[in-house]
Amino acid sequence: MAKSWSFLDTVECNFRPLVVIELAKGTKEETIEWFTKRIVDKKGDGGAQLLIKPLVTENGHENIYLVGASHLRLLLGAETVGLVKECNDNSMRTFTYSSRKTFKDFADDNHNFLTMAECQYIIKHELENLRAKNEKMIPGYPQAKLYPGKSIVRRLLTSGILIQIFPLHDREELKKLRHSWYGRVKVGYQPLDDIRCYFGETIALYFGFLEYFTFALVPMAVIGIPYYVFAWEDYDKYVMFATFNLLWSTVILEVWKRICAILTYRWGTLLMKRQFEEPRSGFHGVLGINPVTGREEPVYSSLKRQLRIYLVSLPFVCLCLYFSLYVMMIYFDLEQWALDYHKENESNFSSLLLYVPSIIYAVVIEIMNRIYRYAAEFLTSWENHRLESSYQNHLILKVLVFNFLNCFASLFYIAFVLFDMKLLRQSLATLLITSQILNQFAESLLPYWLQKRHNKRMKKRVCSQKTDADMSLVEQVNMEKEMGTYLGTFDDYLELFLQFGYVSLFSCVYPLAAVFAVLNNITEIYSDALKMCRVYKRPFAEPTANIGVWQLAFETMSVISVVTNCMLIGMSPQVDALFPDSKIDLVLTVALVEHLLLAIKFIMAFVIPDKPRDIQMKLAKLEFESLEALKQQQMKLAAESLKE
Amino acid sequence: MAKSWSFLDTVECNFRPLVVIELAKGTKEETIEWFTKRIVDKKGDGGAQLLIKPLVTENGHENIYLVGASHLRLLLGAETVGLVKECNDNSMRTFTYSSRKTFKDFADDNHNFLTMAECQYIIKHELENLRAKNEKMIPGYPQAKLYPGKSIVRRLLTSGILIQIFPLHDREELKKLRHSWYGRVKVGYQPLDDIRCYFGETIALYFGFLEYFTFALVPMAVIGIPYYVFAWEDYDKYVMFATFNLLWSTVILEVWKRICAILTYRWGTLLMKRQFEEPRSGFHGVLGINPVTGREEPVYSSLKRQLRIYLVSLPFVCLCLYFSLYVMMIYFDLEQWALDYHKENESNFSSLLLYVPSIIYAVVIEIMNRIYRYAAEFLTSWENHRLESSYQNHLILKVLVFNFLNCFASLFYIAFVLFDMKLLRQSLATLLITSQILNQFAESLLPYWLQKRHNKRMKKRVCSQKTDADMSLVEQVNMEKEMGTYLGTFDDYLELFLQFGYVSLFSCVYPLAAVFAVLNNITEIYSDALKMCRVYKRPFAEPTANIGVWQLAFETMSVISVVTNCMLIGMSPQVDALFPDSKIDLVLTVALVEHLLLAIKFIMAFVIPDKPRDIQMKLAKLEFESLEALKQQQMKLAAESLKE
Repeated sequence: MAKSWSFLDTVECNFRPLVVIELAKGTKEETIEWFTKRIVDKKGDGGAQLLIKPLVTENGHENIYLVGASHLRLLLGAETVGLVKECNDNSMRTFTYSSRKTFKDFADDNHNFLTMAECQYIIKHELENLRAKNEKMIPGYPQAKLYPGKSIVRRLLTSGILIQIFPLHDREELKKLRHSWYGRVKVGYQPLDDIRCYFGETIALYFGFLEYFTFALVPMAVIGIPYYVFAWEDYDKYVMFATFNLLWSTVILEVWKRICAILTYRWGTLLMKRQFEEPRSGFHGVLGINPVTGREEPVYSSLKRQLRIYLVSLPFVCLCLYFSLYVMMIYFDLEQWALDYHKENESNFSSLLLYVPSIIYAVVIEIMNRIYRYAAEFLTSWENHRLESSYQNHLILKVLVFNFLNCFASLFYIAFVLFDMKLLRQSLATLLITSQILNQFAESLLPYWLQKRHNKRMKKRVCSQKTDADMSLVEQVNMEKEMGTYLGTFDDYLELFLQFGYVSLFSCVYPLAAVFAVLNNITEIYSDALKMCRVYKRPFAEPTANIGVWQLAFETMSVISVVTNCMLIGMSPQVDALFPDSKIDLVLTVALVEHLLLAIKFIMAFVIPDKPRDIQMKLAKLEFESLEALKQQQMKLAAESLKE
Repeated sequence: MAKSWSFLDTVECNFRPLVVIELAKGTKEETIEWFTKRIVDKKGDGGAQLLIKPLVTENGHENIYLVGASHLRLLLGAETVGLVKECNDNSMRTFTYSSRKTFKDFADDNHNFLTMAECQYIIKHELENLRAKNEKMIPGYPQAKLYPGKSIVRRLLTSGILIQIFPLHDREELKKLRHSWYGRVKVGYQPLDDIRCYFGETIALYFGFLEYFTFALVPMAVIGIPYYVFAWEDYDKYVMFATFNLLWSTVILEVWKRICAILTYRWGTLLMKRQFEEPRSGFHGVLGINPVTGREEPVYSSLKRQLRIYLVSLPFVCLCLYFSLYVMMIYFDLEQWALDYHKENESNFSSLLLYVPSIIYAVVIEIMNRIYRYAAEFLTSWENHRLESSYQNHLILKVLVFNFLNCFASLFYIAFVLFDMKLLRQSLATLLITSQILNQFAESLLPYWLQKRHNKRMKKRVCSQKTDADMSLVEQVNMEKEMGTYLGTFDDYLELFLQFGYVSLFSCVYPLAAVFAVLNNITEIYSDALKMCRVYKRPFAEPTANIGVWQLAFETMSVISVVTNCMLIGMSPQVDALFPDSKIDLVLTVALVEHLLLAIKFIMAFVIPDKPRDIQMKLAKLEFESLEALKQQQMKLAAESLKE
């Protein structure tokens, strides 16, 4: 084995480890040799042309490898993945190696031109694009089939030979980031650009959205406080508050698109071309020809998938929704029964019994949520989507609908069937506050505490055996490989989405909800930051230009909230009193107002441009330049052709 | 003068006239010489490198010029405008001269590779892109200022030196097209591909939409007939019809997008890259630097434009809408007064008087429409939009809103204020049928008759003076230059839009509307075809990928129609009878149904893909290929760099 590393040492004396590969214990020697050879092989020979080094401890190397790359290789990789960087003239352009001198801060010896997150992203991309040539299987594992063009890393992962690939933390940088992010108590914005440099665009955009959303809720909260303090119950004040809320929520969602464009333009992802998406690792089918690429790969009939979606998944989701509603009805029955029992035989036991239905319901909801999540993942996986993005969209849609119903069905029932505004306000407050506290605890603080305890134990064990100068790296790798994996921003966005629901759906009944949301989000920023920096493995950076399907989800929620708020206002006794003779006039007026508000919302969404004017200009300028370049080229050609 | 043409004759012995340029009588010789020189000049010297020939009659050449181009020049022009053509492997690709051999039907001696409409479009594009170099003004006309980069043709047009540029008809082709289009009575589709070859994509797409829309209305018409024949008045039948209509209208609009994608993919415009748009000819401002192109051109502050739009245009439009409503109220008062008069003193005179208000109202509406159209054009022009497209969008929006109100306000008033369903049905029928008959007459038949009379006179005059062998061309040019100019598809789409309103807004009251619409559209196809082939000058082809803002307009109409239909059904006595006790339940049920229908509409619009799967695949394939090409290029570069 050792000889294969020798040439590396001469090529690159200061090998900088970026990514860690952990193979299963007992992986066959021939497999390791083949895999590492493919990683270091020249591009022309179908390799990734990266550097790899086993992590040597006193017990041998334990099948853990460190991957790095030469500076030049990383620059060429940046071109392959289509990174967009700032030029000397402050415009953003797609990086190409031949035009490297025109980019800001570029120098042949400046190894910080690419951020560490970008380097790791490039290495991940190169590893994932390491494709089988003529191998029919992974050497040593005949059951792990390969076909020309199949991603080797994905096959190694699915066949269990490769346990994980993760990027290394940079202790120095992380310390600085932690300090500026949440290390000191301060009033101000998060260091979004630093977060982006360290964790990549997807995560930075989540924190950007969280921060923006918190600021956007402040006006609602400020206006909501006097309603609580002075116990305002006038009809016109409620209508004003609700109207303001509804229009405000449209404005903030539209403005977010603009802010998102500003951020992602600065980060370069707004201009990044979408890469061709490879099939996701779980995708299976008979070997065929992909009509787009013309390459051999598993093919699965789109009709079959549609049938599975509409004939199995859709009915299943509907059934689950029905079941969830059924459970809710049982809960209300239980509640009623406990109340009756308490009235009849009042005792300590009976007053305790009053809490039992709520507790049971909360537990059942939690269990249902978890079971449903597994079922949704199984079903979406069974639908056999070719692309990771379409898998994610279908999963998000399924989970979103169910969570929406689970969280809000009881509130809808209380509001529009029981007509009990007092109970609604009470339930809303309870649900909002308890869910916030539970979430923050379960999501960040508990894992943080567990991780800390685990780290201490690890450190003790490792320190006692210290033998090598390189120990700190070994220690770091061993610590990080045991950390949990951050599964993406899904749960974080879901939490915000449900919070937005609590704030906007019944805003005219409980104006204080925005206050709690703001308070929660301020601590949420800190606990999420803690989670990212301390609890989880460093995630790979994921370039992204927007928050994707969540924008749509939030917009849908804000449309639904127009309907619910109009209904609530229409049902309030104060409004009722305004139409003493004719209830029909009341209902018609409410319907009219609702339609007007919806129309205004759609017109506003249409009129407010999605990108600020200067970003539009910059994009137009880039487009113009590329058209001009094309034209110049054609002019030259034309002149030559006509001369002949 | 004559010497400048001499070299052309040697270059191209078979000069094929494609486009006619008519200069004002008495244009100065130096201007003509300069302009024609610029047209024939080499590309490298800033010319258009086209061929030009004066049209010689026995009276001299009367300032009419014929423009053509060599075959090679047209091919290079096709590359410049970015035409997309079919390749030998049946895929659509952007035409480039260097890859010309790979295109279907290409041969160096095949002059039909580009259609005549394409050649004319290329020449128009080249003429419009003929730009001033260092000229400060048009030679001979010091008041016609130029600056570097200003389009010469646009300045000539605005200063009145250039009267018109129009493409020539191809008598042979037109005859063939006429025959296959409307020459014989037949059942079948229009020859859309031939129309596209002759008139270009915008017009072909209009006829495609007209045909599709007619077919799409057939199911509504078929279902509507028995309602009329058997005088069905049951509640459930009406609800069924309305529900079907509402969902059907969503389906047809979504399916149209798919059909549109199929058509424009085949025609190549779906793949055509948007060219950088030059300022429209009426745009003015102080000379400045365009931030996008970096070139000198008039600049106008976007803020000023916004102020003009929101502070002047918007209030003006609102005022006009109010005025139109006011006129409508006067009409209803008059109507009532006439009715009262008729009741009191019944006589022949009084029964005639009953018609007077309607006639006056119809005339007033027509006058208001015309005045408003001028006002809208003036205002939109005064808003000083930089781009023709944004000018068009603002104009369309203004005219659309006003026309919508003018056409439907009285119907809304009858339906939702007077609650008179019988009158509604009657008014709807009258309005629909009279407007259809008037439109067809005013739009096609009258101009056709006028044109025919004019042509006969022209022919007589010209034939009596026949002197030249080239006479037929002279005759043709003289005839065509006097023909009216087709002002675009705006009025045709507007007519269809209003028709769609009549059919869908009150569909549950008057199911027969669809029948009339279908009948009208069948004759509309013929009369519009007649108009295009016989009445107007040949228009320049305009590549387009969709019907643009009209798609949005039709979709908005179909959303509004959900609201109106639900209200109408809710108001019908049959539904009323179902809720004898509680009118509130009725209103709530109707509102619920309405919201459900709207939700279904939006979900359907979201679920139905805008492009058929095979078109998606083909587009993905093209994108993949271009990504692959880029990657190959970078791989090569990488290999070289790493070798060094």
